[in-house]
Amino acid sequence: MSEQDKRTELSDLGEFGLIDRIRKASKRENDSSVLGIGDDAAVIDAHGKQLVLSTDMLMEGIHFDLAYMPLRHLGFKAVAVNVSDIAAMNAVPQQITVSLGLSNRFSLQAIEELYEGIHAACEAYKVDLVGGDTTASRSGLAISITATGLVESSKLVKRSTAKVNEVICVTGDLGGAYVGLQVLAREKQVYLANPEMQPELKGYSYIVGRQLKPEARMDVIHELAEKGIKPTSMIDISDGLASELMHISTQSKVGARIYEANLPIDKETYDTAVTMNLDPVTCALNGGEDYELLFTLTKEDFEKVKNHPDISSIGYTTAADNGLTLVTKNDNEVKLKAQGWIHF
Amino acid sequence: MSEQDKRTELSDLGEFGLIDRIRKASKRENDSSVLGIGDDAAVIDAHGKQLVLSTDMLMEGIHFDLAYMPLRHLGFKAVAVNVSDIAAMNAVPQQITVSLGLSNRFSLQAIEELYEGIHAACEAYKVDLVGGDTTASRSGLAISITATGLVESSKLVKRSTAKVNEVICVTGDLGGAYVGLQVLAREKQVYLANPEMQPELKGYSYIVGRQLKPEARMDVIHELAEKGIKPTSMIDISDGLASELMHISTQSKVGARIYEANLPIDKETYDTAVTMNLDPVTCALNGGEDYELLFTLTKEDFEKVKNHPDISSIGYTTAADNGLTLVTKNDNEVKLKAQGWIHF
Repeated sequence: MSEQDKRTELSDLGEFGLIDRIRKASKRENDSSVLGIGDDAAVIDAHGKQLVLSTDMLMEGIHFDLAYMPLRHLGFKAVAVNVSDIAAMNAVPQQITVSLGLSNRFSLQAIEELYEGIHAACEAYKVDLVGGDTTASRSGLAISITATGLVESSKLVKRSTAKVNEVICVTGDLGGAYVGLQVLAREKQVYLANPEMQPELKGYSYIVGRQLKPEARMDVIHELAEKGIKPTSMIDISDGLASELMHISTQSKVGARIYEANLPIDKETYDTAVTMNLDPVTCALNGGEDYELLFTLTKEDFEKVKNHPDISSIGYTTAADNGLTLVTKNDNEVKLKAQGWIHF
Repeated sequence: MSEQDKRTELSDLGEFGLIDRIRKASKRENDSSVLGIGDDAAVIDAHGKQLVLSTDMLMEGIHFDLAYMPLRHLGFKAVAVNVSDIAAMNAVPQQITVSLGLSNRFSLQAIEELYEGIHAACEAYKVDLVGGDTTASRSGLAISITATGLVESSKLVKRSTAKVNEVICVTGDLGGAYVGLQVLAREKQVYLANPEMQPELKGYSYIVGRQLKPEARMDVIHELAEKGIKPTSMIDISDGLASELMHISTQSKVGARIYEANLPIDKETYDTAVTMNLDPVTCALNGGEDYELLFTLTKEDFEKVKNHPDISSIGYTTAADNGLTLVTKNDNEVKLKAQGWIHF
């Protein structure tokens, strides 16, 4: 076998394939490591409560384009996506550490703007910035944030604990962040072609905001707790509804039947998608970066939130061998495939 | 004031200046945030014990050069430098999360080699890999690791708690990692000039190993605990002895008097430095990346380790207004300046 033959491209394996390999090669040394790779966050025993640990890395040119992402928003978003992972474990965020790799094109003012956003998110989500590492980068900006959260052991919610015949719920609406990104990318092209043109974002403020200023749904976590509701499983929607539903399905060993008519899609998202020749339903299913929560509830618990304006029931769990089915508005049945983000 | 005037270069502010600004802008929201920015790791209350949290980011072209750093060693080192921060808090490492930003020039085999090193370090230091994030990078490799550790609240050791008239100790020997790096850089130049030349590393195996395979000194942490010794202050030597001593001095409000004759320098480090027209003492003071521990002991505790082959007393703490003094072999007194790494 030649050297050439031995090279496996990461693009062939995919992100989830890579994670799976990493997970399988990991052993457990410490009793305090309650839950490792494979959920939104790791879980660490903290004497009665559980400490939840989550980390996310954002790379310039992959996750953000500074041509349209103000640094203040980027700082806020970098924290929010980590808090969203903590929320998805039903935990309350506590601390973050922030590591930055900075090329010399960033001035102190630029970094302070980034930290303004980080501090604003710390206030919004009541978390403490307790440490980090600031270093140089040969090119571009790298941001790695780790967040901790606390949850009573009995309140922890994983991806693997949904049961058959439960109600599948999502918060907010879907697809907006993705369609907003397409608008921003289009306006960037217009600007590059003619730098005297101003970007035209009027009429797109909601979806552009979904892309640039996502919020972690701690509000819903607190509301569910107040109503005494513990979801039976939960995940945050960072890669797209279909992909996240696949994670719950695989890990909980259940199928799912969801209804196109029930997918929450904002009017601005819908109309803009259509104008741009995008299918709004595909945007909602595979768009990613909405940072809403996907969770399952028992029917009894669902009764308590069925009139909640920000929670939609989109379907129900089924036996595993039914797989994931989307029932269209015309009553056709379509098998869902998880797509996720293709990074590599 | 023009836009130009408002730009402050990060190089003018320096790493420590930047950290100081970040620290001052941080507020505390949660009671569990016991200690924030400004030590080797953050401290989080975990009901009786304390959870210690540390993070480090390594960027290709800044912290490592894959021309001479095998990926397996890089993986090990990335974990070891975090464990070293946990050790410096007198804590026992428990978990790590690993975030990677990968350009498409890395194959699966390359990533598996990196993870082999990460797993080897997890075994060596008995830590669990519990999570992470794997994403693409436009260019180069970025590694961000966060480590947790546990310590009984009464055993936690900070940088800020040294007192006057205590013994200043270091583990192992100093300057080797820096001189090893100079050898590697020289051989790379030879190779670039003539790719048929093989790198000549014979006679440099110790110092090259210090650069490529540093070890966190958990062995010393466990030995001190067995002898019932709690250092009065501690820090790990990542940026160089002078810089770390300055941190202890500033935060503990003490001065220090250290002796050139007592600095532990390996013969290979010394001889190679001289051959390369480097001052071995400067290498020991400012070289960085040795990942040894610098700590202070009461005189009583020092008696218990004074014959330890791997612990050297290099001087003692004084009143703050004496500053940091190096007494040379000729009995001259030199004021020490912290240099640290100039990243920007």
